[in-house]
Amino acid sequence: MANNDAQAILTHALREIPHPEMPHLSLGALGMLPDISLVDDRAKVALAVPFAEVPIKDDLVAMLKERAAEISKHLVVEVDIIVMDEEARQRFLSLAKTPRVASNPAARVKHVVAVMSGKGGVGKSSVSALLASALKARDLRVGVLDADITGPSIPKLFGATARPMMGPHGIEPVTSKTGVRLMSINLLLEASDQPVIWRGPLISRVIEQFWSDIAWGNLDFLILDLPPGTSDAALTVAQSLPLHGVVLVTSPQELAGMVVRKAAGMVEQLRIPLIGLVENMSYLVCEHCGEKLHPFGESRTAATAEAIGTDVIAQLPIDAGLAERCDAGEVEAYQGEGFDALVNRLLTWADEREQGTNREDNLASCAGCAGGGA
Amino acid sequence: MANNDAQAILTHALREIPHPEMPHLSLGALGMLPDISLVDDRAKVALAVPFAEVPIKDDLVAMLKERAAEISKHLVVEVDIIVMDEEARQRFLSLAKTPRVASNPAARVKHVVAVMSGKGGVGKSSVSALLASALKARDLRVGVLDADITGPSIPKLFGATARPMMGPHGIEPVTSKTGVRLMSINLLLEASDQPVIWRGPLISRVIEQFWSDIAWGNLDFLILDLPPGTSDAALTVAQSLPLHGVVLVTSPQELAGMVVRKAAGMVEQLRIPLIGLVENMSYLVCEHCGEKLHPFGESRTAATAEAIGTDVIAQLPIDAGLAERCDAGEVEAYQGEGFDALVNRLLTWADEREQGTNREDNLASCAGCAGGGA
Repeated sequence: MANNDAQAILTHALREIPHPEMPHLSLGALGMLPDISLVDDRAKVALAVPFAEVPIKDDLVAMLKERAAEISKHLVVEVDIIVMDEEARQRFLSLAKTPRVASNPAARVKHVVAVMSGKGGVGKSSVSALLASALKARDLRVGVLDADITGPSIPKLFGATARPMMGPHGIEPVTSKTGVRLMSINLLLEASDQPVIWRGPLISRVIEQFWSDIAWGNLDFLILDLPPGTSDAALTVAQSLPLHGVVLVTSPQELAGMVVRKAAGMVEQLRIPLIGLVENMSYLVCEHCGEKLHPFGESRTAATAEAIGTDVIAQLPIDAGLAERCDAGEVEAYQGEGFDALVNRLLTWADEREQGTNREDNLASCAGCAGGGA
Repeated sequence: MANNDAQAILTHALREIPHPEMPHLSLGALGMLPDISLVDDRAKVALAVPFAEVPIKDDLVAMLKERAAEISKHLVVEVDIIVMDEEARQRFLSLAKTPRVASNPAARVKHVVAVMSGKGGVGKSSVSALLASALKARDLRVGVLDADITGPSIPKLFGATARPMMGPHGIEPVTSKTGVRLMSINLLLEASDQPVIWRGPLISRVIEQFWSDIAWGNLDFLILDLPPGTSDAALTVAQSLPLHGVVLVTSPQELAGMVVRKAAGMVEQLRIPLIGLVENMSYLVCEHCGEKLHPFGESRTAATAEAIGTDVIAQLPIDAGLAERCDAGEVEAYQGEGFDALVNRLLTWADEREQGTNREDNLASCAGCAGGGA
């Protein structure tokens, strides 16, 4: 690639590094990387810190070199530490003090959980919908925020077609047959198959508004159904919403495992607690002879779980009955197997969180609200 | 939503509308929408045209009103037509004259075909890989550009692990066992499961470079494996690469059909010729009793094809053998059924294109290179 392109890629990549103590803010957004230049394989990076004595200085330098090496191991990186001028320092401190998440007085949600995969088509939306339905069936107050803006499935699964209406505290979510509160871009479009051809910034903005402008009310759980990938939608959910934990979904193929490991890497880098891994499409029972089939091959999920330091909470079958229920908008009426383990794990996790024994999560909220400088 | 948010959404959405004669450029990028304001439900839109007499003026006004109505049918939209000043006009004309696609003297590609879906996990990557392998088996020169930056699968499917090397004309693609040329972000990462946590602009830039900076050489076909969605990656491929046609992939579920119709809507709005629709995961033959199963329900694909004005070229089964071959990096050695129809359709389409009888495509290239003003 031409050198100016390589410089642009390096600059973008370094500026996107999350600040280790405020993972919702990038080094670029904080004004810490004012100058990055690249000549041949030699990169010069100016690292601006708010005060001369910053305890994590060495960590920051190491992070910059590590990320640069990921881009090309031939790069020689020289980091010059400079101290911000007064204007830059004030900007840094004001950003560091801003709460990460937009406040929403019309939403009092105990646990915000994202269902994520990295890989498409492994069943994030049906897992989200089944999870919400199962929690609702246990008399909990549940909402689903469909964060998949270009490929939304949630309204279809629940058979929801009503338009969200303006209420006294903001836009009211649509309520499903059993009482799950729903918000999705497809509830706002004239036709459900109308395309949404938007680039990342607009996608991010809509997701933020689905949190900040919706009168979710009192909820025990808000489930976020994420699109595939580790780009704008996932970053926005992780950085601008009050996310408490992530359930990862995969399918038996090693190929899916590879992409799910990417998602797990993102979750780790952004310091979000991982609740567990669900294997979907694990097997299929032949309706004719009753034998168990493995159409996506033998499961590699145990190895994936080990690699990302979690365990397999549930293995869910492929079931034509589920596909039919989903197409009919009756996901809430589906009676499947293997789902109790997932619900129980989530409830245990939530109990622990409420009791403040979930250490990882405390660390994460700390980092999010501390406002401390670098 | 607060009124300033609504105004921002409206502004973004209108500015993203592709110019009808230059669909690779948006009205916003062309400087045609300098001022958009919203007070309550009344929007005032200034439409700046380069010359007082622009034949498509009425079309533009209608497009603006239509898009605004998609956002909220309560909006009353008033469009004021103004004539650009000299500076804005020169900028407009210079953009209109810029070739849409970055030139690449090291790539002489006859047909650039994207495999797209909108929906994740319907098998875009395996269809791309099988298609490339089948074309290669017929002694054609084939490349695969993996445009899925956050969830790349192509190197894994082909078992490709070599690093792309610098050659005399740019970066050389990696060559598969049978001679398919490959480029993917995963060939550039230290570890295949390393996450790529990038927002849209960087994703777009890398995809552009996978076209412009790679020494693809002489190819009959370059297959673009797109990620799910109709956001940055798909827009970039459609707007910045010399895309000649699109193969859409779906699965039997109506849910997938809905999302694929969104993708088809995007393809239509961007005036890209649609080659046909492939239904993947259509059925499964039980390895024990030999019965045909439909784990994703009965097919709704014929209805989807009719709705988007194309036909179903192929129906491909779910096959554990394919999953195993993919996981083993041996997709080229897979012998499956149902694929000949797709290859034949592609070759017929390519023949017609070469003979210049593909009218739609001619129109599209016209719009891309004309440089004519509004």
